[in-house]
Amino acid sequence: MEEPIERLVEYFKSLPGVGQKTAQRYAFYIIENSREKAENFAKAIIEAKEKVKFCRECGNYSAKDICPICEKRNQKVVCVVQEPKDILSMEKVKSFDGVYHVLFGCISPLENKGPNDIKVKELLSRVQRNGVQEVIMATNPDVEGEATAMYIAKLLKPMGVKVTRLAQGIAMGSDIEFADEITLEKALKSRQEI
Amino acid sequence: MEEPIERLVEYFKSLPGVGQKTAQRYAFYIIENSREKAENFAKAIIEAKEKVKFCRECGNYSAKDICPICEKRNQKVVCVVQEPKDILSMEKVKSFDGVYHVLFGCISPLENKGPNDIKVKELLSRVQRNGVQEVIMATNPDVEGEATAMYIAKLLKPMGVKVTRLAQGIAMGSDIEFADEITLEKALKSRQEI
Repeated sequence: MEEPIERLVEYFKSLPGVGQKTAQRYAFYIIENSREKAENFAKAIIEAKEKVKFCRECGNYSAKDICPICEKRNQKVVCVVQEPKDILSMEKVKSFDGVYHVLFGCISPLENKGPNDIKVKELLSRVQRNGVQEVIMATNPDVEGEATAMYIAKLLKPMGVKVTRLAQGIAMGSDIEFADEITLEKALKSRQEI
Repeated sequence: MEEPIERLVEYFKSLPGVGQKTAQRYAFYIIENSREKAENFAKAIIEAKEKVKFCRECGNYSAKDICPICEKRNQKVVCVVQEPKDILSMEKVKSFDGVYHVLFGCISPLENKGPNDIKVKELLSRVQRNGVQEVIMATNPDVEGEATAMYIAKLLKPMGVKVTRLAQGIAMGSDIEFADEITLEKALKSRQEI
């Protein structure tokens, strides 16, 4: 292959999870489409990088100082997530009307990340400032995520705020046969009357 | 999500085989990386679209009038493929030293595509002009690809040129248990002495 195609393939290959073949397919798609489309695509990349900053309040990606979620929704309920992309997933739950707080990571001794390396202080001051009533911990259900949730809960409780955690159990639509033992144990412990 | 991110996600979604989630991951990757990288990515898209044309000789994508393969390799052996991307696959066979000819499709009555809609005339004139000795038909092993290969072979044979077809049989590393009956029949018919 020649230079301009090869270069484009290399850039596509740098995207997460993209290998040589997929990158080639993407590059060929660009070449086979109109010049206008290529130009708009390029513009969209530059604009996203240039205009998107972090929301001053929650840390989510935002083109404005304050993101639309923080602007419009109930400040009294804060859902704490590890990364901005977790907000996208949580937003699929249409019924949630609260706001978010992005930690940008979790406490992880293996990666040398302590409480001061993630946005804990910002969360505490926000809770105080806005008179938050409930903080929902939506960190990942793994060792680091659990530890981070516990650590933050300990700091928040003396402030008189309700701290909750997303329920853990068997996933909807999954199969008990294939559930792992830790998940099943959690599901059994948290069983609810029907 | 907000405008600049959403727009970028939409463009990534237009790539072949990319859904909402993958597009979001790509867009976040752009936002999370350096401004320089975003600018170079954008430039690579525009350059690929601007500079890449078709090779005058074989029809492959090329930044020059004549692609590097046509420039350097044996013009007497021509491998006929349906699309430029097939050349990428064939080139994995390092031992092939001939050149290519892209038909840009195949004869397909269902899609209303006849011999005049693909580059057959160009192939014939090329064979004559360059004194080609062998034409290898590497169209897809499906009904349309087979028919196209047969049709072109019929036109080429009176010109005294040897016409061959990629061997068909069971794929290397596959399992006879899972081979379909048409493939097995082809493999049996073309069996070779060992």
